[in-house]
Amino acid sequence: MSLSTVFVTGGAGYIGSHCIVELLSAGYEVIVVDNFVNSVNGPDGEAMALKRVETITGKSITFYECDLLDKSALEAIFAKHKIDCVIHFAAIKSVGESMEYPLLYYKNNLIGMLNLLEIMEQFGCYQLVFSSSCTVYGEPSFLPITEEHSVGNSITNVYGKTKYFIEEMLQDITHANKKWNIIALRYFNPLGAHPSGLMGEDPIKPFANIMPLISQVAMGRLPVLTIFGGDYNTEDGTGVRDYIHVMDLATGHVAALSLLQKSHQNYKVYNLGTGEGVSVLQLVKTFEKVTGTTIPFKIVERREGDISVMYANADLAEKELGWKSKHTLEEMCTDFWRWQTMNPHGYRNKTTKMTNGHH
Amino acid sequence: MSLSTVFVTGGAGYIGSHCIVELLSAGYEVIVVDNFVNSVNGPDGEAMALKRVETITGKSITFYECDLLDKSALEAIFAKHKIDCVIHFAAIKSVGESMEYPLLYYKNNLIGMLNLLEIMEQFGCYQLVFSSSCTVYGEPSFLPITEEHSVGNSITNVYGKTKYFIEEMLQDITHANKKWNIIALRYFNPLGAHPSGLMGEDPIKPFANIMPLISQVAMGRLPVLTIFGGDYNTEDGTGVRDYIHVMDLATGHVAALSLLQKSHQNYKVYNLGTGEGVSVLQLVKTFEKVTGTTIPFKIVERREGDISVMYANADLAEKELGWKSKHTLEEMCTDFWRWQTMNPHGYRNKTTKMTNGHH
Repeated sequence: MSLSTVFVTGGAGYIGSHCIVELLSAGYEVIVVDNFVNSVNGPDGEAMALKRVETITGKSITFYECDLLDKSALEAIFAKHKIDCVIHFAAIKSVGESMEYPLLYYKNNLIGMLNLLEIMEQFGCYQLVFSSSCTVYGEPSFLPITEEHSVGNSITNVYGKTKYFIEEMLQDITHANKKWNIIALRYFNPLGAHPSGLMGEDPIKPFANIMPLISQVAMGRLPVLTIFGGDYNTEDGTGVRDYIHVMDLATGHVAALSLLQKSHQNYKVYNLGTGEGVSVLQLVKTFEKVTGTTIPFKIVERREGDISVMYANADLAEKELGWKSKHTLEEMCTDFWRWQTMNPHGYRNKTTKMTNGHH
Repeated sequence: MSLSTVFVTGGAGYIGSHCIVELLSAGYEVIVVDNFVNSVNGPDGEAMALKRVETITGKSITFYECDLLDKSALEAIFAKHKIDCVIHFAAIKSVGESMEYPLLYYKNNLIGMLNLLEIMEQFGCYQLVFSSSCTVYGEPSFLPITEEHSVGNSITNVYGKTKYFIEEMLQDITHANKKWNIIALRYFNPLGAHPSGLMGEDPIKPFANIMPLISQVAMGRLPVLTIFGGDYNTEDGTGVRDYIHVMDLATGHVAALSLLQKSHQNYKVYNLGTGEGVSVLQLVKTFEKVTGTTIPFKIVERREGDISVMYANADLAEKELGWKSKHTLEEMCTDFWRWQTMNPHGYRNKTTKMTNGHH
């Protein structure tokens, strides 16, 4: 007998797919949607990442290709399945891209969320875990950042504003209607991959996160890693972030869902981070050490909108969710590299290759 | 030969309809849409307020019943007409209602704006005047409020947040694409009516602004005016606002449009206010004096989300738009009362009655 049925939006993406592994292991049923805007589909419209999840867990997943902007498609899924709760990952998430295409970001992220909330209300489904981000804090006024830190001030990019706006909406709807039972999780910087090597980050959009870029350099596909800003007021001059293993994020979502089901929260917010700041250069050095590769890099001007130092105080999640990150920076690098070398072309290879790539 | 063609959203509403009088007088063609959510339609789907505008100006108006959430209907109008610029009034605007129905407010106001921006971009139309509000300032940290005052902090209601979120979107899209030529007008508190007595405020939603409420009391339809909060730190303890005549707002929009057409602004924001703070009790006393009525009132607890004192510094609009409010508080009361007594049932009477109401 399963726990309850979770509707997962953006479930074919990086964080969503890893989270589904943990949801299935914890006994949840999942209904997954994705629009393949930033995830890989196979020849029959299947979500490649979810095939791997099925391999890892031995369970099957109900999947629909569905864009949240298509409200009637969303409604049809809620009409077909008895959905108990929702985890909303679906969003476009590139900081740089969001500055170039603000209207696209506002449209996708805000309307997607509004459609989902309306459909949930319509079907009497009030439990939601929302993917927020540490970007809602803007430039930190103190470190480590707790959930009490102000939000919405000096947010330097449109992506972060979409997350902030949605948090405000969630706060307002939960204030107006106490039936809502919502947790927003503010992720710090997700890295790593499933330890099996079968799953990982495979962005199909040109604006990539740092780990895929480091990997591309390690595999000889990019000549050099570009680091934005070497003159920050940090130990080595590069930006400092709180990198967190994607499998830790995944267990964080299961913990949040479990709390929502145990007791009514109305609206809560938790940081998901390790509490440790790591510079970009430290990340590169760790990657080189655990993988035995060399990553040539060049340091260029700071990038507009980037923040100098950002890391979490994650005590509240430990206290209330009973959750704490477990994986080290070394594991984030090892696991990502395993994924990358076993799947040099990500999910776009239908068979998993046992190769060490080009290095 | 007309100037250019202005697409007016929410043009059958209170501010929109008064503004159209001034637009037509200035020589613009107008294409108007409204969804009649808070404006009165006649038996043949006509906008009652716009019939009066045609009477006053002797010009005819192209009108469509259209909800901005219906993007394809919006697209069809842009395909049919050569639209040069847009004034976007359409929004739901009740502070109290927005706290009860936040999802409705976010959906209507944000998606309406996003759809409009997308269609404008699609048709190469980049000139926009947006109806913002002084509520974006939240609790004032100094008075009178200039455009440099911080926005987005401590906004006490969802309606105000929708205006703030849209301002942020407009700022971001104009930053990303310099073709945009946008002015946001931050209204203070609109009062009054067209001096002809043929047009005025006729809310069909139950949450009403103060002037219609005062009028209802004056006409004997409400026994007493409820004033929220008598213990503010003001001269008489009631809240202080910057009331501005709706015909002054109307000329402010014409001035903004004229500036956009004369020279590229990218993005500008202006306060539209008189610069004078007036307490609720002062407003009531002025109304009694100029109309010869008596307004019984009772003072109750402060209302959640209300601000104590708020008035504009409107110097920037005078300097850059060449605009300044002209009408006095007495005129706001006289003109509203003329409208109300000539039309005791607002636009819902097909014939204009020459009556003095019930007082």
